[in-house]
Amino acid sequence: MTARFDVAGLGNAIVDVIARVDDAFLLRHQIAKGGMTLIDAHRAKMLEDALSETTITPGGSAANTIAGIASLGASGAFIGRVHDDWLGEGFAGGTKSIGVHFDTPFAKEGAPTARSVILVTPDGQRSMNTYLGASVELDEGDIDEALIAASKILYIEGYLWDSDSLKGAVRKAIAAARKAGTLVAFTCSDSFCVGRFRAEFVELIETEIDIVFANESELLALYETEIFDEAFQQARATGKLFAITRSEKGAVVVQGQAVHLIDATPGVTVVDTTGAGDQFAAGFLTGVARGLPLGVSGRLGVLAAGEVISHIGPRPQVLLKDLAAEAGLI
Amino acid sequence: MTARFDVAGLGNAIVDVIARVDDAFLLRHQIAKGGMTLIDAHRAKMLEDALSETTITPGGSAANTIAGIASLGASGAFIGRVHDDWLGEGFAGGTKSIGVHFDTPFAKEGAPTARSVILVTPDGQRSMNTYLGASVELDEGDIDEALIAASKILYIEGYLWDSDSLKGAVRKAIAAARKAGTLVAFTCSDSFCVGRFRAEFVELIETEIDIVFANESELLALYETEIFDEAFQQARATGKLFAITRSEKGAVVVQGQAVHLIDATPGVTVVDTTGAGDQFAAGFLTGVARGLPLGVSGRLGVLAAGEVISHIGPRPQVLLKDLAAEAGLI
Repeated sequence: MTARFDVAGLGNAIVDVIARVDDAFLLRHQIAKGGMTLIDAHRAKMLEDALSETTITPGGSAANTIAGIASLGASGAFIGRVHDDWLGEGFAGGTKSIGVHFDTPFAKEGAPTARSVILVTPDGQRSMNTYLGASVELDEGDIDEALIAASKILYIEGYLWDSDSLKGAVRKAIAAARKAGTLVAFTCSDSFCVGRFRAEFVELIETEIDIVFANESELLALYETEIFDEAFQQARATGKLFAITRSEKGAVVVQGQAVHLIDATPGVTVVDTTGAGDQFAAGFLTGVARGLPLGVSGRLGVLAAGEVISHIGPRPQVLLKDLAAEAGLI
Repeated sequence: MTARFDVAGLGNAIVDVIARVDDAFLLRHQIAKGGMTLIDAHRAKMLEDALSETTITPGGSAANTIAGIASLGASGAFIGRVHDDWLGEGFAGGTKSIGVHFDTPFAKEGAPTARSVILVTPDGQRSMNTYLGASVELDEGDIDEALIAASKILYIEGYLWDSDSLKGAVRKAIAAARKAGTLVAFTCSDSFCVGRFRAEFVELIETEIDIVFANESELLALYETEIFDEAFQQARATGKLFAITRSEKGAVVVQGQAVHLIDATPGVTVVDTTGAGDQFAAGFLTGVARGLPLGVSGRLGVLAAGEVISHIGPRPQVLLKDLAAEAGLI
């Protein structure tokens, strides 16, 4: 059977609500500048009411990756939970408008759609206030096994590994993938996530995952060491395909015998590193789904990451497919 | 038989003649600031005559490596040609004084001892004026086969690969090593050297060398690519032990299945990168000679390089043995 999708993403469905504010606004609302704070529904509503003009756009880590995959000309689908409200409609519409398949049914009960209120001050800094809402109420009922079976790769966001209900949904998705021969990719998401669930992550990787994404601090947390080479040796010993991002040091791709050392894109002026890991995953997974060599897949990842850090915002602003063609990678 | 020496170095025997001058001196003598210029005997004498106060110390790439090896508490010997003159005496005396074995007979004929006139301006920049003299008149007669046979590793400077006479000396040394079971290590020295003798370097590595040192630009030149990963794959395919230095990106050690990714020492303030490659080789070879794991040998290399770039001058200013012990490496 030919797969309908190169990659199906599973993650938090979050709407980015972006507004330009002055520093006085942050002070007035006691917002830590440049940080990411989890907030509740009440505070989300209060902040939104205080903003006169906002830009609404689909966000979330795995969803951003799938957007990058679409920008690279590959086919992507997304599974995530939104509520049946106007932000949910916005998420679904914005996702479909870029050519990503999305048909997780809107939740009729429970919390409203998740949103991240992103306040951009005149100095270009972004202060994020995230209300996880419906996205973390994802459960087994939201997992579309047929969609996963129709994809070459299932890509799961580590942020989802949280409540028992969320873990149940993740496990159901993995089981569907394994049954269908769909590759399972997993991103560690954040060293804080790794710290909370280290033993579970290690076990999950060894038993259920084919492709692991981690940045340097996540990898060090995963294998409880401060020495990169020691973490690298442990990752390699699993036999799994690891794609490790190292900021300006580029990326390391390893699977058993194969080791590739990918340089960061030279000459990129870093404006905003948000989304670098998500877009690296987009490039790398596109390469793997298309059967490209691991070294070329790594370079696709670095290319996509290099684009997204050159401007504000976590999604590509040009067609990555064109950039990749110019670089001779696809 | 127990080896008498951990490492025997073969390289240009050069005396560093260091003087503090003002910028007017450089202008008056038309010296390119911060550069390295090859000069003839006449100009060397003229410059020296113009300097009132100089510091004389043994130098040269492989000789600096052997000095680092001694600083690490390992046993080293050096083979290189000096003339029977006061600078030759200075080289021999200075080398022996740090515990390095040196008994290449002084040349009674030919050019005077090589020296590098290093002019340090008040801004800390070093302008080097090197007269290669006797060092490049090294020939087969200077190669002490018994000394090489009595060493665990023979370490050869790529700078020596030049005239037919020098190449003959290098080949004789390699033959002696192979006959005795001494490992042969070779540093590419400089991307300019690699450019001149690329095909010969590649062949030499594949047929005669066990351990190769290269920095990033040397490796790219060796395998004619601008993509590090491609050069890395080619190096790896040789099956030889490669130790590749990447400045702030650390080092990569590879030999067949084994791949180690060694981070640069964090928090080093770079004062003068002269000697970084030489001291990396000192640390790495000490580890290999002592039978330490490759990852630990790489970390010893990075430790030694981190010390030498933190101050002016190509040789360690503290006992590297103590630093290595503090870091838990030996």
